[in-house]
Amino acid sequence: MRPNDRAVDQIRPIKITRNYTAYAEGSVLVEFGNTKVLCNATVEENVPRWLKGQKKGWITAEYGMLPRATHKRTRREAASGKQGGRTMEIQRLIARSLRAVVDRAVMGEIMITVDCDVIQADGGTRTAAITGASVAMADAFSQLISAGKLKKNPMKGHVAAVSVGILGDEVLCDLEYVEDSNADTDMNVVMTEDGKMIEVQGTAEGQPFSHDELLRLLASAQKGIADIVQAQKDALTD
Amino acid sequence: MRPNDRAVDQIRPIKITRNYTAYAEGSVLVEFGNTKVLCNATVEENVPRWLKGQKKGWITAEYGMLPRATHKRTRREAASGKQGGRTMEIQRLIARSLRAVVDRAVMGEIMITVDCDVIQADGGTRTAAITGASVAMADAFSQLISAGKLKKNPMKGHVAAVSVGILGDEVLCDLEYVEDSNADTDMNVVMTEDGKMIEVQGTAEGQPFSHDELLRLLASAQKGIADIVQAQKDALTD
Amino acid sequence: MRPNDRAVDQIRPIKITRNYTAYAEGSVLVEFGNTKVLCNATVEENVPRWLKGQKKGWITAEYGMLPRATHKRTRREAASGKQGGRTMEIQRLIARSLRAVVDRAVMGEIMITVDCDVIQADGGTRTAAITGASVAMADAFSQLISAGKLKKNPMKGHVAAVSVGILGDEVLCDLEYVEDSNADTDMNVVMTEDGKMIEVQGTAEGQPFSHDELLRLLASAQKGIADIVQAQKDALTD
Amino acid sequence: MRPNDRAVDQIRPIKITRNYTAYAEGSVLVEFGNTKVLCNATVEENVPRWLKGQKKGWITAEYGMLPRATHKRTRREAASGKQGGRTMEIQRLIARSLRAVVDRAVMGEIMITVDCDVIQADGGTRTAAITGASVAMADAFSQLISAGKLKKNPMKGHVAAVSVGILGDEVLCDLEYVEDSNADTDMNVVMTEDGKMIEVQGTAEGQPFSHDELLRLLASAQKGIADIVQAQKDALTD
Amino acid sequence: MRPNDRAVDQIRPIKITRNYTAYAEGSVLVEFGNTKVLCNATVEENVPRWLKGQKKGWITAEYGMLPRATHKRTRREAASGKQGGRTMEIQRLIARSLRAVVDRAVMGEIMITVDCDVIQADGGTRTAAITGASVAMADAFSQLISAGKLKKNPMKGHVAAVSVGILGDEVLCDLEYVEDSNADTDMNVVMTEDGKMIEVQGTAEGQPFSHDELLRLLASAQKGIADIVQAQKDALTD
Amino acid sequence: MRPNDRAVDQIRPIKITRNYTAYAEGSVLVEFGNTKVLCNATVEENVPRWLKGQKKGWITAEYGMLPRATHKRTRREAASGKQGGRTMEIQRLIARSLRAVVDRAVMGEIMITVDCDVIQADGGTRTAAITGASVAMADAFSQLISAGKLKKNPMKGHVAAVSVGILGDEVLCDLEYVEDSNADTDMNVVMTEDGKMIEVQGTAEGQPFSHDELLRLLASAQKGIADIVQAQKDALTD
Repeated sequence: MRPNDRAVDQIRPIKITRNYTAYAEGSVLVEFGNTKVLCNATVEENVPRWLKGQKKGWITAEYGMLPRATHKRTRREAASGKQGGRTMEIQRLIARSLRAVVDRAVMGEIMITVDCDVIQADGGTRTAAITGASVAMADAFSQLISAGKLKKNPMKGHVAAVSVGILGDEVLCDLEYVEDSNADTDMNVVMTEDGKMIEVQGTAEGQPFSHDELLRLLASAQKGIADIVQAQKDALTD
Repeated sequence: MRPNDRAVDQIRPIKITRNYTAYAEGSVLVEFGNTKVLCNATVEENVPRWLKGQKKGWITAEYGMLPRATHKRTRREAASGKQGGRTMEIQRLIARSLRAVVDRAVMGEIMITVDCDVIQADGGTRTAAITGASVAMADAFSQLISAGKLKKNPMKGHVAAVSVGILGDEVLCDLEYVEDSNADTDMNVVMTEDGKMIEVQGTAEGQPFSHDELLRLLASAQKGIADIVQAQKDALTD
Repeated sequence: MRPNDRAVDQIRPIKITRNYTAYAEGSVLVEFGNTKVLCNATVEENVPRWLKGQKKGWITAEYGMLPRATHKRTRREAASGKQGGRTMEIQRLIARSLRAVVDRAVMGEIMITVDCDVIQADGGTRTAAITGASVAMADAFSQLISAGKLKKNPMKGHVAAVSVGILGDEVLCDLEYVEDSNADTDMNVVMTEDGKMIEVQGTAEGQPFSHDELLRLLASAQKGIADIVQAQKDALTD
Repeated sequence: MRPNDRAVDQIRPIKITRNYTAYAEGSVLVEFGNTKVLCNATVEENVPRWLKGQKKGWITAEYGMLPRATHKRTRREAASGKQGGRTMEIQRLIARSLRAVVDRAVMGEIMITVDCDVIQADGGTRTAAITGASVAMADAFSQLISAGKLKKNPMKGHVAAVSVGILGDEVLCDLEYVEDSNADTDMNVVMTEDGKMIEVQGTAEGQPFSHDELLRLLASAQKGIADIVQAQKDALTD
Repeated sequence: MRPNDRAVDQIRPIKITRNYTAYAEGSVLVEFGNTKVLCNATVEENVPRWLKGQKKGWITAEYGMLPRATHKRTRREAASGKQGGRTMEIQRLIARSLRAVVDRAVMGEIMITVDCDVIQADGGTRTAAITGASVAMADAFSQLISAGKLKKNPMKGHVAAVSVGILGDEVLCDLEYVEDSNADTDMNVVMTEDGKMIEVQGTAEGQPFSHDELLRLLASAQKGIADIVQAQKDALTD
Repeated sequence: MRPNDRAVDQIRPIKITRNYTAYAEGSVLVEFGNTKVLCNATVEENVPRWLKGQKKGWITAEYGMLPRATHKRTRREAASGKQGGRTMEIQRLIARSLRAVVDRAVMGEIMITVDCDVIQADGGTRTAAITGASVAMADAFSQLISAGKLKKNPMKGHVAAVSVGILGDEVLCDLEYVEDSNADTDMNVVMTEDGKMIEVQGTAEGQPFSHDELLRLLASAQKGIADIVQAQKDALTD
């Protein structure tokens, strides 16, 4: 039995609040149950030096976690003087996921940085971050279009993500912390809104997993992501 | 004329939301107008090494700003690999202010760390942080008392803070960003709930200030802090 | 047509040289075509502090690349003062992969660190590193058994890895650099010797990939890994 | 009774030695009793990038302490790899104080860096540093005028500083180390030569302080600073 | 009696393998007995900023040691976040030695970086590195000449190095680790191929050494270096 | 003709001021002409962890340069976040030199740290530092003996150092900056008071040097050091 009587293939209640802060060109608080991530998209009208002159845009992401987003306090990365391996891994994943749904030639020489900061962590922060960042980026592009700085929307569609895992014999969708820390296998799946895959990262925490288990994980992820994409669309039409 | 028709000695609307996040022993979102700071107090049942065996507690603070809390994006300190001078100055100020209202012998060998993270910045982030941190710390102490880990409340009273400044000929209370960046003199005042001073930090940004101006600044701060302390008390009796 | 007339599902010639250096408890130079990685396993008879007293071992890995392992010189990480995100991501992957085939309770309080240093890079350095590290770790365990420090081999079997990708319409196995940099999708697969999955990391570099493409990638990886495991076994029986 | 029978409102003997080292454009050893700070002003004929083209100068400061300036050896900041919060706080204070007495438009695009290095510390290093830096900066400007690079002196007057504090019931001026470490309240005051305030930083170390105590502290500081300004003037007319 | 019955003035077997890796403009694995250092020379067609416009080239070097090049594992410098003092000292020595045999005006605005990475360490890594780096640099210059980018060879001759030491009463040439760690005096000598000195660094580890001992050390080094230069010449004529 | 009509083998006027600062167990300002280095010896009654229990002492050194000790301002190492290669090389040299004249078993488990900070640099700062550090260390030992913490003096004699060089055809002793920057060969020699060698570090800056030139350099150094040792002895008998 999952917490709150969730069905095995049921995602947590999702809440997407746009314009959460006042200054960012796109600002989204995304909640997957108790996991809360603030995704702020910043537009800059230039690109990194190595890209200059190529008439293409760039999208990057940074990820952070407030020290007390977690049950026990985590040391502040700014105080320890470097970002840990997990942080780097996650922010690279978010950025790749966002770039996969954007036509960078349509962007022109514009850069978008999406800061994903975890306010409260209860499992699935990276997948929530990707989901929220997609909406924040969409808002940033809309604003560029309204301002006449872009003629056409460079986004080819939404990108959304979910974590799935195997606990005992069950495939569970959208793991929360207590589930995640007990799962034998944990997989993060990032998909486009039409169900194609952008990233699949499956890890055996305990037992290796079989080909059949992989297929069940993917099926569960696909269903969950369909629900998440719907939540993104609903948020953008509010 | 101040934004939103504020009177010169009028503070912005203050909102103090307790239990803002789920895990911290004290979690407060404090808002001074558009300035929003999340203050999370963490309790640990040991003290820094240099204090061990002295039967006294310790209180420390860390301060951070989300990259897009500001109008233009600020570089993430974790990414640049160190905390800047301004950050260090502020977190030292917050910690001193909190320690000034606590009887550390009553605490015993317990340490409280208050993380103050700015979600949105519109001037006065450090004074809002002190104000919110005081409430978060009070909640943390209450929880320790409820849990039977403390017999007596170590807090001697609230601590609150406000920024005041001189703009043209006027002394303004609780400066917001547009005022702060144009002020000739800027002063941060930290007081106990009964109006005694803990910190006074006045800086001439443009013209030096006179003894008389200092007195007017202090008077304005004192009035503002009385209102802020009332907001703290209201929040704690909710 | 692939370089050197390789078939699409054919791995590069693999060479595994044991005892490559003199001091490490396991020292393996692994070559996948022109990719050459030196994997040195170090045994220490204690464990990290957070694991002490739990009667379990630990396995960790570090990854580095000599500055001129690449076509153009890469900046030395020791000189720039930190390990990059890619390095951290890879060394975390290697370590997880190794731990997945070890019964850490059988190890007792022993730690193995495997240093994987790329001498020459031509694609697939992380998968070659996992493959070589598995052999180096096996040698380290053998030495512990010979020395009477372990009664039983904690390794449950070999772990091996390969990269696969989609280039145009073809699924290619064991990508070399020119292929990798043009692939639309790139997937690293880590498996046990009996073909169960430990890690699956697929990334759409250009177009998102379909469920069917994922299956074709996995099938190709499975075949390649069977050949690689054979090379591991041959090396260990020399 | 104060050490050396000082009166409560009496500053320590001040000694200002100009041209202390050979190369700096202004080089001053300032001594407040046993506190000795070397203040070297360096002139560079360009400004930081963010100021270029604005026809204004810039003044910055750096502060350091020799490891054995203190009773017990302090760790060298260059060896620990970063400047501590106290150092940053002090060097920001020195720089702001100096800028407050300079007309930066008169300077033109010139930058002055004043290095304040504590040779021996016996309380009041930051206030001694400001006092000495003012003289070093004056010498640097004189040299620029002599060399025909400035037509007019950009300095509007001297800036000087003193620490004052409350120990028991007494307000003491120019605290030395043993006094400072026992004081209930400690205040650093920076003033122009005509007694206007540039910085006021009062901190309750033990008990909060009252409005009346603040006034007594300021009065004591004002008297002390008048004596210090006289010492600056004497030094510059030698 | 030395290990392997070496005579006191006999160097270890030297092996110089050119084109050891595929991409570097010069790539040499140099072996002095069990000491193995990979020396990769990289050519870049520009110079550091401070040298631009002077029509002179630059040569620099970096030195590293694989963590398990040593008997006990050494911490990876990239992981600890800085290069140690020993590393810096050695790479400065290598670079100075190489520059001493090059006419930088003949080079033109070209920069050569030689990376010396120790694969296995058994004493004398810095002197082996200089010896191998000289050959790698020679290969890089040959390639520049073949490519028509240089008309004339900027190298004035080979540079080679050896360590000598006093153990008991004997002067030993080309110390291996067990000898080096017991020597009273240790001297690194860098010479041109015609026996003139570029660097002499003698250190008394235990007893100070006399003028006479210095002369004996130099004589031993001179003989050893003659043999090493011959090995360099042989390698280049293969 | 040398500056100030110095003879080729004549050292600059040396001045050694003991008890220069108040707190260090040995505090010496050493001046070689315009080169001024403050050497402060700190005694701690414990040793680094790796030496504990061996009943031997330890001596270490740190070296720094005030930013404006030089003609042009040098960046503060504490601000740039690391000590440069030159600094590390020098402080390792100073420490080795001091240890060479001390019987560490006589010291017992005591550690001496000598901080050598350059107030003004005009060539030869490292050799002046060694010379001054020797006197500071002698004072620290005397104080330990007076306090009854040591029964016997662990110092076997003085250690002193000088730089010598070849400029044109002349061998010059104790180079000042203008000479040093033009010299073809530069050699730092560290000797015991009875003329035995501790360190010899000769570097060809331009032309390689011959065996004969080396002998002339050593002879010049020997004469200079004899004069320097006399200055040390004079200082200690004042």
